[in-house]
Amino acid sequence: MIAIAITLLVLELGVPKPESPGTLAHKLAEQWPSYAAYVVSFLTIGVIWINHHAMLRRVQTVDHSVLVFNLVLLLLVGVLPWSTALMAEYLREDAGQHLAAAIYAGSFLAMAVAFYSMQRHLMDRPQLLLPTITSAERAEVRRRNRAGLFPYLVATAAAPVSSYLVLAICAAVAVYYALPAVSRAPQEA
Amino acid sequence: MIAIAITLLVLELGVPKPESPGTLAHKLAEQWPSYAAYVVSFLTIGVIWINHHAMLRRVQTVDHSVLVFNLVLLLLVGVLPWSTALMAEYLREDAGQHLAAAIYAGSFLAMAVAFYSMQRHLMDRPQLLLPTITSAERAEVRRRNRAGLFPYLVATAAAPVSSYLVLAICAAVAVYYALPAVSRAPQEA
Amino acid sequence: MIAIAITLLVLELGVPKPESPGTLAHKLAEQWPSYAAYVVSFLTIGVIWINHHAMLRRVQTVDHSVLVFNLVLLLLVGVLPWSTALMAEYLREDAGQHLAAAIYAGSFLAMAVAFYSMQRHLMDRPQLLLPTITSAERAEVRRRNRAGLFPYLVATAAAPVSSYLVLAICAAVAVYYALPAVSRAPQEA
Amino acid sequence: MIAIAITLLVLELGVPKPESPGTLAHKLAEQWPSYAAYVVSFLTIGVIWINHHAMLRRVQTVDHSVLVFNLVLLLLVGVLPWSTALMAEYLREDAGQHLAAAIYAGSFLAMAVAFYSMQRHLMDRPQLLLPTITSAERAEVRRRNRAGLFPYLVATAAAPVSSYLVLAICAAVAVYYALPAVSRAPQEA
Repeated sequence: MIAIAITLLVLELGVPKPESPGTLAHKLAEQWPSYAAYVVSFLTIGVIWINHHAMLRRVQTVDHSVLVFNLVLLLLVGVLPWSTALMAEYLREDAGQHLAAAIYAGSFLAMAVAFYSMQRHLMDRPQLLLPTITSAERAEVRRRNRAGLFPYLVATAAAPVSSYLVLAICAAVAVYYALPAVSRAPQEA
Repeated sequence: MIAIAITLLVLELGVPKPESPGTLAHKLAEQWPSYAAYVVSFLTIGVIWINHHAMLRRVQTVDHSVLVFNLVLLLLVGVLPWSTALMAEYLREDAGQHLAAAIYAGSFLAMAVAFYSMQRHLMDRPQLLLPTITSAERAEVRRRNRAGLFPYLVATAAAPVSSYLVLAICAAVAVYYALPAVSRAPQEA
Repeated sequence: MIAIAITLLVLELGVPKPESPGTLAHKLAEQWPSYAAYVVSFLTIGVIWINHHAMLRRVQTVDHSVLVFNLVLLLLVGVLPWSTALMAEYLREDAGQHLAAAIYAGSFLAMAVAFYSMQRHLMDRPQLLLPTITSAERAEVRRRNRAGLFPYLVATAAAPVSSYLVLAICAAVAVYYALPAVSRAPQEA
Repeated sequence: MIAIAITLLVLELGVPKPESPGTLAHKLAEQWPSYAAYVVSFLTIGVIWINHHAMLRRVQTVDHSVLVFNLVLLLLVGVLPWSTALMAEYLREDAGQHLAAAIYAGSFLAMAVAFYSMQRHLMDRPQLLLPTITSAERAEVRRRNRAGLFPYLVATAAAPVSSYLVLAICAAVAVYYALPAVSRAPQEA
């Protein structure tokens, strides 16, 4: 379902009408907030997707709470195509850009909180995990997921300053977790 | 496919146009029926999704009837993004709110009836189930699924009274089945 | 991917605008061609979906031709949300209903031809199938899939007569294959 | 997720309005660039899909880089419904057709480069592959994927000449890889 939400993002990228004034190059350049928001949201959901798989690989059995945590996580992931479109539409508006940016970063924060809560629930219950997972590894996963909340808190708090700043922070976070992940592979992004 | 329908719900959440009058906060607040209907539908489909998985875990083999029951269930699940959008659009209209609410709750009821019918078909045929499923457990599943029809009957019957009441009942049902499920885990939501 | 196409059908079911004249009941009643086309297409794709699974259960290994046949089949399945929307839009138009109906039934026919071709390719190559599949069973599958082409030929040929007739034939075929399948289970729909 | 992107392509195929002037046949004929772009994109994504499966069948384990390469590949696949719609909209426009064609072919090229990069990363690391994969086979996969970049380079370079030429090249490439694949089955398309 994360795969579906990540693919639906593209539906928010509109094609400029041939009848509207200006060259196509100009009209496409005008849409840059849509492209930026698309790429940032795609990478952010993608990192969650990879981490979600990594999480499932540690799990031996799930209780009903895990299913409910997962449902809430998916609900929040499902909202992202909408908050991405909102951000793209209002990024350059004088009025509305701050609220749109707060909702955009806030929806990432909510997703990260839901993911952290699910991880914590699992890491606190070794009986749900594979026996090969050590308590040191569990503490490390908890610590890393808690640290992942911080940048989205900062991004959300930056909304009253500027929507561009919010987008830049979210982009930096997505690139940090996605791209240099190569060198951090053993610890997972 | 349930995963797809649950994700498509978000496509019905429109982004307000920057050109329309009013602040973004005001315009978003205006859309609250869409958000409420989104969350209620998401949780309702999510509970069906979890229960569908629980059902499949009991099954050893399927006959063609199960496939057909499943197809009808999916047809009704597939309609929910539409009935959700209808409810969101007409919740506050004087004319139309009652019919929209009846269709909204009625589509949940139809989905619940289809799910109950499939479960009953399976529970009446132990040869389709894993040998570990006892007849007491089969009776319990039948009873619980039958009980699950009742709230949607009430919600549909409440449509002539008020669309808000219908939404509130559906929301209460979704939250009842999704959230406190933790404590009822051994019996499944 | 068949699961995705079947779910996308719902996106073609529009919600009537509250501002447009008439009661909601009237406006929804006006849309009946959309609902009819939705249900017929859903059941038709659903039957293909079930049969596709049944086919895969007989297969031991695939050659590249099977993948290409499958890709063409999926291309044709992918077109159905569009041909369904076209049929719903033009069913009651004096001009255009015949062409729309021909495209609608023709897209089902093309899908059935692609499915038959793939089945034939497989049934002619026992080395691709499970060793438990007898040559009598292979002949039976070939025969049944060939027979399945006939009703769509008739439906397409009926397009110059009336779009309603085409829809009725397609509906009858879908119901015939989906619903009474219970009694024909051992032979698959 | 490739399955989802390939299915979303159809959403860009609009249904002509009954109110607009002209016969339905004429209006549909007018839309031919949409159909052509749909089929070409469908086959192109389909070939990547088949090759992606073939790649996964060689892999024993993935490192984090593979996940990141895969995420970038999916991001580029996810863009294709949009670049396809852009190409369909501007194919016959005097202004804009060259840029739209460059973006269309360029998005195929970017996808092919991402796929080649992932394949190369894998083929250079035998420890990630099944032990049955010989070094000759790895060299062959690398060579074939590198050769697959060339036609999209040509198509992108042809954009300043004509959008029709670009579409024709992309169509020829898709058909070359999809259809005659039968005879090249042992080497994969």
